[in-house]
Amino acid sequence: MSPARTDHDARRHDVSEAVWRVLAEHGFAGLTLRAVAAAMGASTGLVTHYFAGKRELVAHALDILETRTRHRPRLASGAPGLATLRAHVLNILPLTPEGAAMNRIWVSSWDVALSDPDLYAAQRTRYERIRADLRAALDDALRLGELPPDADTERLAANVLSFTHGLVVQALFDPGTFTPARQTDLADDHLTSLARRGLPPT
Amino acid sequence: MSPARTDHDARRHDVSEAVWRVLAEHGFAGLTLRAVAAAMGASTGLVTHYFAGKRELVAHALDILETRTRHRPRLASGAPGLATLRAHVLNILPLTPEGAAMNRIWVSSWDVALSDPDLYAAQRTRYERIRADLRAALDDALRLGELPPDADTERLAANVLSFTHGLVVQALFDPGTFTPARQTDLADDHLTSLARRGLPPT
Repeated sequence: MSPARTDHDARRHDVSEAVWRVLAEHGFAGLTLRAVAAAMGASTGLVTHYFAGKRELVAHALDILETRTRHRPRLASGAPGLATLRAHVLNILPLTPEGAAMNRIWVSSWDVALSDPDLYAAQRTRYERIRADLRAALDDALRLGELPPDADTERLAANVLSFTHGLVVQALFDPGTFTPARQTDLADDHLTSLARRGLPPT
Repeated sequence: MSPARTDHDARRHDVSEAVWRVLAEHGFAGLTLRAVAAAMGASTGLVTHYFAGKRELVAHALDILETRTRHRPRLASGAPGLATLRAHVLNILPLTPEGAAMNRIWVSSWDVALSDPDLYAAQRTRYERIRADLRAALDDALRLGELPPDADTERLAANVLSFTHGLVVQALFDPGTFTPARQTDLADDHLTSLARRGLPPT
């Protein structure tokens, strides 16, 4: 690799870091070429070298978000079934400062995704994928006898993702009430209730 | 009231309608003085007569959103307890085109609210108020024997609002899967499970 190439890659990394900092602080509403330049201590001209305009900047921001989400530290899923389901849920919730920043950016991205057909379709596919992951864990739980035998795992997957995303929103707007411990308690309550639905009390 | 005053009010109404149309189509990311002017077929100069800048425009948009949400058509709450809780939940969900537009704008508003301290505090207060309403219905349900006697209504209120807001997001991104009938089924499933928690099967 030529030195020029390496410099280019290093600079691209700096640009991505600056985009992330702007998003974490100001969301997509505050994501402008000028704000990214300011976060880098560089000129707007330098940033326009990487992004032709706002749309390219937003697309890059979503790429970073997807990549960081995929590579974020996660709880090991442990045993199949409900333990894996629990790990999926806790891995989504804003339980750490990094998790809070990532969720804040995801929630912020809904605004742009709702008004751009490509981003909208990508988001829909993303949620289908998450529900499929949740459902696979629920299907294991059903086979393992952790759920009532008549449980509808597709509906439960929709229920669990709804609960989880809504808890993310509550927690982002009220982190003092929805501390990591309380979020975890609420998630455990919810998952316990799935396992008990229609079953005699333990 | 002088004719000039009436004209001013009529024009202010037109401006508000234009702001709403821009929000419903493009969200807060697309809310600019220029877009509002275009939606009215007017000059940007006319719109700047009403709003000094973007911040005033966003504040006005949130006022309209709050007012329209307060005055939207609602299901009658019916009997106290779980029937009222169900009405609260169904009144939030995007079950009609108007409800979908309103929710799309609320979800879009989270981006700006997360990066503005005043809007953030207003949103937190709003969610506290909704949870208090849900909790009042849950307290009635507890007194009426519709919930297990050891139910923690504060936690259940947080659970119900989380489920409801998360279902709003799923439905906005996938209205084909989350039809009004399916949203209602999922909500009924969820509310039934609250009533059954820890109780023998019916």
